[in-house]
Amino acid sequence: MDSTVTIKDVAERAGVSAGTASRVLSGNPATSAAARERVRAAAAELGYRPDARARALRSARSHAVGLLVSDVRNPFFADIAHGAEQAALAASYVTLLANANEDTAQQDIYLEAFLTQRVDGIIIAPQGEGGGNLRALERARTPLVFVDRTVEGFDVPSVTADNAQGVELAVAHLAAEGHTRIGYIGGPRSVSTGRARHDAFLAAVARHGLEEDPELITAGDFRRASGGTAATALLSGRKPPTALLAADSLMAVGALGAVRRQGRRIGSDLALVAFDNIDWFGELAPPLTVVAHDARELGEHAMRLVLDVIEGRPAESVVLPMHLVVRESSTGRAAGA
Amino acid sequence: MDSTVTIKDVAERAGVSAGTASRVLSGNPATSAAARERVRAAAAELGYRPDARARALRSARSHAVGLLVSDVRNPFFADIAHGAEQAALAASYVTLLANANEDTAQQDIYLEAFLTQRVDGIIIAPQGEGGGNLRALERARTPLVFVDRTVEGFDVPSVTADNAQGVELAVAHLAAEGHTRIGYIGGPRSVSTGRARHDAFLAAVARHGLEEDPELITAGDFRRASGGTAATALLSGRKPPTALLAADSLMAVGALGAVRRQGRRIGSDLALVAFDNIDWFGELAPPLTVVAHDARELGEHAMRLVLDVIEGRPAESVVLPMHLVVRESSTGRAAGA
Repeated sequence: MDSTVTIKDVAERAGVSAGTASRVLSGNPATSAAARERVRAAAAELGYRPDARARALRSARSHAVGLLVSDVRNPFFADIAHGAEQAALAASYVTLLANANEDTAQQDIYLEAFLTQRVDGIIIAPQGEGGGNLRALERARTPLVFVDRTVEGFDVPSVTADNAQGVELAVAHLAAEGHTRIGYIGGPRSVSTGRARHDAFLAAVARHGLEEDPELITAGDFRRASGGTAATALLSGRKPPTALLAADSLMAVGALGAVRRQGRRIGSDLALVAFDNIDWFGELAPPLTVVAHDARELGEHAMRLVLDVIEGRPAESVVLPMHLVVRESSTGRAAGA
Repeated sequence: MDSTVTIKDVAERAGVSAGTASRVLSGNPATSAAARERVRAAAAELGYRPDARARALRSARSHAVGLLVSDVRNPFFADIAHGAEQAALAASYVTLLANANEDTAQQDIYLEAFLTQRVDGIIIAPQGEGGGNLRALERARTPLVFVDRTVEGFDVPSVTADNAQGVELAVAHLAAEGHTRIGYIGGPRSVSTGRARHDAFLAAVARHGLEEDPELITAGDFRRASGGTAATALLSGRKPPTALLAADSLMAVGALGAVRRQGRRIGSDLALVAFDNIDWFGELAPPLTVVAHDARELGEHAMRLVLDVIEGRPAESVVLPMHLVVRESSTGRAAGA
């Protein structure tokens, strides 16, 4: 029926964008007085009748933010989700969580689902090279924020941690404890944090004059089993390391099991430092030394950042500092614990 | 910024009527090949996304299921979520996760959000007595399934585990290992699993002729700190228990830390059995004995059940068996591990 007057018609007549017309007609106060006057006059002239349902569909916010984590079973991402959700609730938004399961295809499915659900914005700890729906999302100008990880070639605000600083703190600590052969259990090179930590490890080993032996460098996939495999390989080498650095919590847990199965003790026989300050790590015997970035804080920052984008405020990327929490797993005092 | 692309925009770009564009985009075969090609090209160029809410208003399903877990940072619920999501993807549904954070008010907020998002159905591990939106949901006849927990007075299909069986297996095992004083770290009585496990513990202690001492019964809130507090209280009593049974994984982790801080060793000095077969528990030194119900399987069953309800198939409640995974934390062989 071509007699229907749409918001677009009103916007054209008023000489404003469809978004402005929509905001005025929905009573949004974030509009100028001049725009309000022009839009209302145009609506009256054209006989515009808002269709309540259509208006809600086109202009209302859902007040929902999609958060796509890499792996919901990784407590680091669960903590990010918890922080994000609390910050969202404080701003009267809800968080719809989805799990990419460290899988690019599944990431695409959920990005599609978020768009279909018309979330107001998306926070993502991205997988892979950022093809597929991630690129479509950028084109569609959906408010988007990266958390923990980034993807090259995307101009998207992000909240990340200073990985180079974290690795340097861990290596400096182990060097000060007298270790010269540190085995590195790294993440996948396809993920920004995997690359950054790997490069920082090589640099820190060189800087501290430690042994630069390619046999000491392994790479897992940020999941538990791969940490066990890597630790077993490192400890079965010709000249095993005296300390391990694991690039995430799940791989550190896998390494714990592998070390135990070799009849060795963390702390007394072998030092272990893990990335990610998971609550559990402080409770173990011995408690684990960790490179800590507050995952909850990462989540809170990311939510505030995406709400800035959604609500039209300036949005600046944030790099959070890391620090080292020294516990008995790396100080050789664990034997009698 | 209003970046919403409408069907009208697509029709204009494609040079066809809005009706034709709409028919092509809804998959209606009564369209010409030329129109289909032009409309699809225009939709791709403009980044057009069908609006789930608009489509749902018209008739179609959203193919999204809401899953409200009690605590996203509890690995047991993360495993449930993973299982549910994989079962959903296999049936071409997506799972929108939300976190009640063991809080009834937050549960209500997310149930409301799910309804606003027009999910096709909801799976929930419910909090509290089931007031508020849970009752509204039942009245609205939204397809609903309980997982892990239930609420009295609701006629809702559920997937739960046989808690009485699980507790009996744990107590029988500890009795067979020679323990007569078992300290119980229970969950909240406001949650069905908390009540069921508590009652089963009292029954099992009586059945096996163990010491029925009220000092051996504590109750936490299914979170880590409360497990530490409970374990400290139990071990500081006049006649401490020789074994602990923790009613969930997080409280077991809290207990681990409390035991270590008292200078005692799990396995050799004190037996520990935990509910929930968290991957991590098998990697610890010593590995923990657990009352296992497969959380992933619970999630898969719950998703299949809610899809049965959504798609009009008969839906029967399921009670999954529990079993005991005996490891060194309860067999006294841990001292030299």
